[in-house]
Amino acid sequence: MFNLFSLKGGLDNVQGFYSDGVNVGMKTDSNDGDVAFIRSHTLCDVSSRFTTNKFQASPIKHYQKYPKDFKTNFILINSKNANAMTGEQGVKDIEAIFEKLDRFHTLENPIMSSTGVIGYRLNQEKITSAFDKFDYNAKNSDKTARSIMTTDKFKKELCFRVELDSGESFNIGAICKGAGMINPAMATMLCFIITDADIPKDDMEELLSEATEGSFNRISVDGDTSTNDTIMLLANKVSGAYNKEAFREALNKITFELAMMILKDGEGSNKVVVFEVKGAKSNEEARKASMALSNSLLVKTALFGEDPNWGRIASTIGASGIECDEKRLTIYYDNLLIYSDEQRELDKEREDKAYKIMKNSSFKVTCDLGLGEGNYTSYGCDLSYEYVKINAEYRT
Amino acid sequence: MFNLFSLKGGLDNVQGFYSDGVNVGMKTDSNDGDVAFIRSHTLCDVSSRFTTNKFQASPIKHYQKYPKDFKTNFILINSKNANAMTGEQGVKDIEAIFEKLDRFHTLENPIMSSTGVIGYRLNQEKITSAFDKFDYNAKNSDKTARSIMTTDKFKKELCFRVELDSGESFNIGAICKGAGMINPAMATMLCFIITDADIPKDDMEELLSEATEGSFNRISVDGDTSTNDTIMLLANKVSGAYNKEAFREALNKITFELAMMILKDGEGSNKVVVFEVKGAKSNEEARKASMALSNSLLVKTALFGEDPNWGRIASTIGASGIECDEKRLTIYYDNLLIYSDEQRELDKEREDKAYKIMKNSSFKVTCDLGLGEGNYTSYGCDLSYEYVKINAEYRT
Repeated sequence: MFNLFSLKGGLDNVQGFYSDGVNVGMKTDSNDGDVAFIRSHTLCDVSSRFTTNKFQASPIKHYQKYPKDFKTNFILINSKNANAMTGEQGVKDIEAIFEKLDRFHTLENPIMSSTGVIGYRLNQEKITSAFDKFDYNAKNSDKTARSIMTTDKFKKELCFRVELDSGESFNIGAICKGAGMINPAMATMLCFIITDADIPKDDMEELLSEATEGSFNRISVDGDTSTNDTIMLLANKVSGAYNKEAFREALNKITFELAMMILKDGEGSNKVVVFEVKGAKSNEEARKASMALSNSLLVKTALFGEDPNWGRIASTIGASGIECDEKRLTIYYDNLLIYSDEQRELDKEREDKAYKIMKNSSFKVTCDLGLGEGNYTSYGCDLSYEYVKINAEYRT
Repeated sequence: MFNLFSLKGGLDNVQGFYSDGVNVGMKTDSNDGDVAFIRSHTLCDVSSRFTTNKFQASPIKHYQKYPKDFKTNFILINSKNANAMTGEQGVKDIEAIFEKLDRFHTLENPIMSSTGVIGYRLNQEKITSAFDKFDYNAKNSDKTARSIMTTDKFKKELCFRVELDSGESFNIGAICKGAGMINPAMATMLCFIITDADIPKDDMEELLSEATEGSFNRISVDGDTSTNDTIMLLANKVSGAYNKEAFREALNKITFELAMMILKDGEGSNKVVVFEVKGAKSNEEARKASMALSNSLLVKTALFGEDPNWGRIASTIGASGIECDEKRLTIYYDNLLIYSDEQRELDKEREDKAYKIMKNSSFKVTCDLGLGEGNYTSYGCDLSYEYVKINAEYRT
């Protein structure tokens, strides 16, 4: 049917797209850029998922002023300032910035996206000073990916080429930022995915929803997101090639791998832990318990301490509000049975095995509620001293 | 009408009650006791509030086997082991322990209460070894309060004497343990309140509910509690005196002050912060937003960093799922306006003032949503490195 190839270079392999990032003096703690763009030489369809936070940031309000099914050729992105809680002025500032940018590059419904501190107006002077520094014909995914980083410890970019049996091919590239992993949803996550596939707008909507649900939504809590969270898919169609199943697979893979990169970059985190809840009364009950586990601080600190303290796992499930029964519950770390009705206390042998499993940089906790067919898997990480340090000192 | 006097000595001033605590070798990191009792020489009415966790610990299951309106003369309490997730054996172990205790002291419907690690059977041998060490006629509130401590850094005990205009008086004394303050509800909280007031059983139920809602429930999240949480009120009526309003005031004061002690002892916490949300569409919406603030890690770490980052406050409210509008919202730190529609960015002068306020060991954050009459106040604390250390190393 088709073959997927992983390519280096993030956004750079996607035909007809250009990107660059420069430092205009807002990011003073590194040489990375703080303003970036992604553009296409032809108009793109765009599909987006935004935060459910009631206080949506100004870039999102600005985006939502465009008519449904608008096309765009330009995304401008800045870090260090979220342009959130900035009122109507925040949207006006974006319009003023694009007025100046239009002199350097012809814009069609340009989109802005921001991440950083909440509650301050954008520094227009600094941001617009990027406009004669940008190389508008650059393919510079590396600089672009670095420019959108905040507390990220490494840049996040991916690209897949899809080769169809017909001999045709298309590309999907993406960059992403995000790292705040205690309640991941509270730290801004931005993800820009571009493709030259000839994908219909309806498929973009459908497949982006599915991909988001299988990836970023599993490392965050519904309805509990930052002011700026954004996932955006742009398609300029220039390859002329498309296959829905192939696109689905590539997009799911890209979003899942990016979500895992965010977890691995969890602020000060050392482990990625898979929380599979099965045997629940319904998928929704399984989701509640699974998300409660990936968000529990007592579970997270036990992971950091590499303590096989299954009591915290059980207590978190019991507190999650779902139906459960301690006689039917079983808990596994990887393939090691940690708890069942018959086998409650950890003997020395199993405890030693559990310690070994917990020393791994990744392992799986499986909780089978033994009540039904509902299941859900989410992904969490441990909580270390480093998290507190990063977040206590973030703004200052 | 009446006068309230604060007395030293916790439980000791309450007529007809005796208590003691001893160390039987389960608590090895201090000389404090690990097994304690509270008893009355006459039978007591008892009113209790237990955890909403689905996996209720064995002591709670044991309690619930008694008929409604049972009377008791004895509470046995241990630390270091929660006797939770121990199945039917956990309840049998309690029965076996009381069988042995009955030889030392005549028991009527004895109650057990436990706190500590989940998933291990009680060490019957050690616990029953306390029975010939106890002084059953002691008034030893200090040792009793210390015996129920786990990660607590200080013991928690209080007593009020109520003097009525008639010349009669009664006493209310209490001890309490609890310290896990990130999500306070996830760390066990035990509170034992005893009184010699001649209070009717119906009033006990009504006033304990009211007192719990105004205190412990405001530092924890509904439906998200540990396996063992217990608040218990025992009345032996021996003073013959009672006045409902006086009892209400004394009980509310005791529970509120104990709740604040728990916060101050928050694992590694340095500040107590009051989160008042008003102007909400309803009290329930105000409660949601207020509890979201006291539980937000990003807010907590900003408090620890003494960073006047109101953006995290706003974002948390926006993410709490309630109705809100950034044009109507105002945020104050104590009396200092930090955010309003007209005054969004913090100027230098206000920022300096905010820094000063945040250096205090206690201050108030007020969020007025400007939408209605709903209000709620909850109480939180900051999150420090110490929390992670305590919780990573707790069990081992």
